[in-house]
Amino acid sequence: MISLVALDADDTLWHNEPLFTSRREQFCALLSRYEPDGIPDDRLYEVEMRNLGHFGYGIKGFVLSMIETAIEITGGRLESSDVRTIIQWGREMLAGPIELLDGVREALESLARDYPVILVTKGDLLDQETKLARSGLGELFSGIEIVSDKNAGVYRRVMARYAVQPDAFVMVGNSLRSDILPVVEAGGHAVYVPYEVSWIHERVPEEALAGARYHQIPHLRDLPPLLARLGAPQQG
Amino acid sequence: MISLVALDADDTLWHNEPLFTSRREQFCALLSRYEPDGIPDDRLYEVEMRNLGHFGYGIKGFVLSMIETAIEITGGRLESSDVRTIIQWGREMLAGPIELLDGVREALESLARDYPVILVTKGDLLDQETKLARSGLGELFSGIEIVSDKNAGVYRRVMARYAVQPDAFVMVGNSLRSDILPVVEAGGHAVYVPYEVSWIHERVPEEALAGARYHQIPHLRDLPPLLARLGAPQQG
Repeated sequence: MISLVALDADDTLWHNEPLFTSRREQFCALLSRYEPDGIPDDRLYEVEMRNLGHFGYGIKGFVLSMIETAIEITGGRLESSDVRTIIQWGREMLAGPIELLDGVREALESLARDYPVILVTKGDLLDQETKLARSGLGELFSGIEIVSDKNAGVYRRVMARYAVQPDAFVMVGNSLRSDILPVVEAGGHAVYVPYEVSWIHERVPEEALAGARYHQIPHLRDLPPLLARLGAPQQG
Repeated sequence: MISLVALDADDTLWHNEPLFTSRREQFCALLSRYEPDGIPDDRLYEVEMRNLGHFGYGIKGFVLSMIETAIEITGGRLESSDVRTIIQWGREMLAGPIELLDGVREALESLARDYPVILVTKGDLLDQETKLARSGLGELFSGIEIVSDKNAGVYRRVMARYAVQPDAFVMVGNSLRSDILPVVEAGGHAVYVPYEVSWIHERVPEEALAGARYHQIPHLRDLPPLLARLGAPQQG
């Protein structure tokens, strides 16, 4: 019996990682004026990871990490106009259009007829709220949970808040690290919907998946029939 | 009958605005090397307000606004080492010690014996969560609501989430703009506890207060007796 369906947002409902990927490419292009031989691919990622505990997930932290990386790589030659450019990228990312994955609205409308559906997403609060508003999907969710990280404790708190037992809870998302493994750990159902690309930070080693029981579907439109197989919703 | 007590965090439970004030002074000192005649006091504030819709409240947005202001004022002369310094200020602010207001722990312990007490604060999610963790007050709250803005709609959603009627809800905080007026608008009780300084953005004109009914106390330790006068807590 599934009585609450929780969905991830970025790269589950709408395209997100490509926005970061293209900015990373722009970032390398910008720095190539200072370093014609190119910069190490993983330098920005290292700075992002170093800053994660301070800045968290989200665009503002990404912008601050790009600025820091640029200063470190150029050793003080960085022009302030380029800093300004990087900040402007952040504003554009924060305000840009939201491109839904194909068929997501229809899948969500179908789900919302049969289950209470909530959004569980990590990142900056204002950022995620405005993305949901721009997506036009807001009215299909009966709850929004924006969290600073996704671990088993966080999922247990979400279940408690909605008064749902783990075996009646299902989380759906594109990240094995954030949407699947911690939910399985907390005793819930998890449905993995892979996205075309994943941020390296969200990847998990093969051995971490050993023994983890979860479902995998190619597209969100396959979710309603899967849930029907898992058990009809509880009435009332 | 009060059945839920909601408290603001920054400058209600712990000192916050002085951290920003002292960084603003450091910022002016840093720029005085480029502009010996000084910089307009309100320039940073203007940039902060321009960015508020994009970056929201919080330290990361403050850091990005400082960097932008510095670039605009110095017209491209800004050295990247100074950008790095500003980012480092942000990290220090995010990780610094939390200094509780005098007597806050005792007042909170007293409140928590008689009422469910929740925290309602705006700003960056991770930032506010780690401040609460560093404050050592976390276990005294039965709920934490971190919101991107505080308006009447947000307070109505908080009341609905905790299944409390407006006249059984009381919000306590130091900002007339964020903690008092929108709560009064939503039909709840509000208790204003002024802090020694307030950010200009949180100030409201006299006329906005005309007719608004709220309580004012000099210190959080005066809250338990005030609530007792408003009505004993509901049992069960």
